Amino acid sequence: MQNFKKTIQQIVGHRFFMNTVMFVILLNAILIGLETYPDLRAEYAGLIHGFEVFFLWFFTIEIILRMLAEKKLHHFFKSRWNVFDFVIVAGVLFFSGTYFISAIRILRVLRVLRAITVVPSLNRLVTAFLKTIPSLGTIMLLLSLVFYVYAVLGVLLYGDISPEYFGSLHLALVTLFQVITLESWASGVFRPIFAESPLSWVYFVSFILVGTFIVLNLIVGEILNNIQEAKEEELKEEKIEVSKKELAKITNEIAELKQLLLNKEKM
Amino acid sequence: MQNFKKTIQQIVGHRFFMNTVMFVILLNAILIGLETYPDLRAEYAGLIHGFEVFFLWFFTIEIILRMLAEKKLHHFFKSRWNVFDFVIVAGVLFFSGTYFISAIRILRVLRVLRAITVVPSLNRLVTAFLKTIPSLGTIMLLLSLVFYVYAVLGVLLYGDISPEYFGSLHLALVTLFQVITLESWASGVFRPIFAESPLSWVYFVSFILVGTFIVLNLIVGEILNNIQEAKEEELKEEKIEVSKKELAKITNEIAELKQLLLNKEKM
Amino acid sequence: MQNFKKTIQQIVGHRFFMNTVMFVILLNAILIGLETYPDLRAEYAGLIHGFEVFFLWFFTIEIILRMLAEKKLHHFFKSRWNVFDFVIVAGVLFFSGTYFISAIRILRVLRVLRAITVVPSLNRLVTAFLKTIPSLGTIMLLLSLVFYVYAVLGVLLYGDISPEYFGSLHLALVTLFQVITLESWASGVFRPIFAESPLSWVYFVSFILVGTFIVLNLIVGEILNNIQEAKEEELKEEKIEVSKKELAKITNEIAELKQLLLNKEKM
Amino acid sequence: MQNFKKTIQQIVGHRFFMNTVMFVILLNAILIGLETYPDLRAEYAGLIHGFEVFFLWFFTIEIILRMLAEKKLHHFFKSRWNVFDFVIVAGVLFFSGTYFISAIRILRVLRVLRAITVVPSLNRLVTAFLKTIPSLGTIMLLLSLVFYVYAVLGVLLYGDISPEYFGSLHLALVTLFQVITLESWASGVFRPIFAESPLSWVYFVSFILVGTFIVLNLIVGEILNNIQEAKEEELKEEKIEVSKKELAKITNEIAELKQLLLNKEKM
Repeated sequence: MQNFKKTIQQIVGHRFFMNTVMFVILLNAILIGLETYPDLRAEYAGLIHGFEVFFLWFFTIEIILRMLAEKKLHHFFKSRWNVFDFVIVAGVLFFSGTYFISAIRILRVLRVLRAITVVPSLNRLVTAFLKTIPSLGTIMLLLSLVFYVYAVLGVLLYGDISPEYFGSLHLALVTLFQVITLESWASGVFRPIFAESPLSWVYFVSFILVGTFIVLNLIVGEILNNIQEAKEEELKEEKIEVSKKELAKITNEIAELKQLLLNKEKM
Repeated sequence: MQNFKKTIQQIVGHRFFMNTVMFVILLNAILIGLETYPDLRAEYAGLIHGFEVFFLWFFTIEIILRMLAEKKLHHFFKSRWNVFDFVIVAGVLFFSGTYFISAIRILRVLRVLRAITVVPSLNRLVTAFLKTIPSLGTIMLLLSLVFYVYAVLGVLLYGDISPEYFGSLHLALVTLFQVITLESWASGVFRPIFAESPLSWVYFVSFILVGTFIVLNLIVGEILNNIQEAKEEELKEEKIEVSKKELAKITNEIAELKQLLLNKEKM
Repeated sequence: MQNFKKTIQQIVGHRFFMNTVMFVILLNAILIGLETYPDLRAEYAGLIHGFEVFFLWFFTIEIILRMLAEKKLHHFFKSRWNVFDFVIVAGVLFFSGTYFISAIRILRVLRVLRAITVVPSLNRLVTAFLKTIPSLGTIMLLLSLVFYVYAVLGVLLYGDISPEYFGSLHLALVTLFQVITLESWASGVFRPIFAESPLSWVYFVSFILVGTFIVLNLIVGEILNNIQEAKEEELKEEKIEVSKKELAKITNEIAELKQLLLNKEKM
Repeated sequence: MQNFKKTIQQIVGHRFFMNTVMFVILLNAILIGLETYPDLRAEYAGLIHGFEVFFLWFFTIEIILRMLAEKKLHHFFKSRWNVFDFVIVAGVLFFSGTYFISAIRILRVLRVLRAITVVPSLNRLVTAFLKTIPSLGTIMLLLSLVFYVYAVLGVLLYGDISPEYFGSLHLALVTLFQVITLESWASGVFRPIFAESPLSWVYFVSFILVGTFIVLNLIVGEILNNIQEAKEEELKEEKIEVSKKELAKITNEIAELKQLLLNKEKM
């Protein structure tokens, strides 16, 4: 049993195993791309189905192997990436045979994102991205607060004038998201309301100023996170280098001094 | 009397008091959100009214308690946040019974923003934001100047061609705000004018170049403010650390030297 | 004669003189704003005309005084700001009586920009802005080159399909400016062309990628300019401070050592 | 033969040669600009043709000279810029006489880009730009992955609702590029789909958040690249300066100490 686990660990840890998984993910990616063309899907229906069955088996076995390679099963779920992989692979199995065909199709597409789990450089990048999110928590809370207040105000003030954009709270939230991306905020959303409510510019201009200011600070926070990380590494090296140089020279001088004193003592 | 004030200060300063206020603000937020759905508002009209009366009383009593907790009443108004809280809470009382129903409704929504006063992390963030504004004063003055001059020019040059956008000074200011956000500046505003006035591209292109350049410098100023703050803290620590290390080594060496000299003296 | 020049220099250099000029510029700004409302212009036509005559005289006399205050007349034109002031003030005089009424009206509006010459903080800001422009020269040259090549290509490739946007070289340049601001580049410009020329996405996507990349580097250059300036000042102070602290401690130790040696010598 | 090569190297390396090439490129640029105006092209057809023949000969001879100036022919193709020049110049020769007239016309326009090869400051700038691209490789890989997955999902989910935007994989990719530039993403693409599929906001909002976040990190990466480069140079200078100053003072003090000890020894 112990040997069996060791063999699996050797298989899973082998470069060839990882490269094969990457290759199959790539193949999966190409296939779902080709499938979007109805002609191709119709002509090669059998082949596509065959590949799909293969992918299903392959990824299931891969996950099981990686689970068995862990010392204890629940260790496997400690990594967020493993959970992500498991949900995506198990989801297809779970829904297969049911009528949730669109869920299966979406999950099959999302399998391509497993490349993030498998390719180390992508994994490191996304992990770094996810790490910067918590530090932006308070700003996001503030942004949510501003969104919520403006959304409620929007429904109160312009719900009747522009039901398409401010007819309900969730419509207003979607509209405010559109406004903060500055997309057709004036030509589409604001101008028709402005024609009926002359003071509506206060609502829109203030929201854009406050909203973009907060988003700007989110971005600045993100930039600072990156700069600081880059700087910390750089500064450490540099600091050591500066100290080394200076100390080397000073220590030399002091050593000479000591030598002089010792010489005198001998005398 | 002194004891009474002390008791109130203890109540107001207690964690439980703050958490309760936060909870009621959250409840208020949820309620005004639900109220935007006409069906819910109609069905639970009584309940909503009851809650609203409760909120009115609760926030009024909370403000009064916080006022009484101050040594002197006018101390309360020294903090901008207290003034903000007071205006929003007192405003509802002030307008209730009058016909300014929309003012009351807006104030009830704005009460949600009191979360900024109550949640310490939000408070610190917004205070930090507000502090960076004065340093951007001159750039904003320049931006206003450019906006004003272009608005007047816009009315003079295109007031007749495009009355919707440049019909009056305030319309022109709104239009220029739209142009600086780059929203439909060409498709909506510029192209129709361009068709009649072939030189109008000078007006629009120059405004966008000058305007976005100034806004860019506003943003850069904001970034610099943030970077400098972050750096000041970081550098202080680091500076001390560098000095410490170096000095420790040098001081050691010198101490050894002293020891040598003292030893010799003893001899 | 010498005394006369000295008196003028005293007048021009006096705070009261500058404040008066600022006040008249502000008055001018308010007036041209009010003039944009036809009703007001019609009703107070006489008053407005009177003010305008006053402004004309006032600014002319102000410029002449400032010229006389210079040691030699041509010294006056060494400052770019003086040239700007002169052109704007003299322009109105030059065109008055001619039929170039719109030129006069524009110049009267531009007189408000003289606030930049008169208010020291604005002057410093704009001078700082203008100073950063030359350092961005090469990037702007590259941007012009890219614009020119894409404009010619645009006329060649899409001049017939979309004469409104690519009918001639100058139309294409205006269109590319619109595209680089990302305003309706797809919905307005690209999609109709895309419908007829399936490969046109190469032209637009490549232009947007290359163009925004260059503009991004312009912005980054601007940010770097600002950061470096801010840092240079900061670092100088800090550097001195670090050296001071360290040296103070080390020098102390060495001074003690010297003292020890001297003491021994005395013995 | 050796002398012949030397003479050519002297010609090619001469400032006059480079200036002439720059001048001819400028002339070429002006000509292709003028050619875009049909009236001018018709009137001066002969002159334009004459110039074009001249340019063809001139650039061909220039390239041949620069090839001959190399020690061995294949050395010429080591530089990317030379390859670029060769392709553009040889391309016109290659296609001339064939029916690929539009290819020739595009290549003639692209010849203007040879200014980047010839003008040293432009060359350095573009080389610097190209150097920063590889460091952004992983982020671009991630962006491609996200684009691909969302494109396939877009075709699956909205291919039937909005065939214009999500009818096929390549259409979906173009649409997603439009969405990430935030151009008409709501008014043009999202709103019509939203009307039929109420959950489509999840697709669009998540894509915009993820997409702009990645693009933001691309930009931040680019900014950091530039800052680090600028800083490295700056810090080196500064580091040396600090060390110098401090060491000068300390070394002085120690030298004095030595002197004291030596004096004593003499005694």
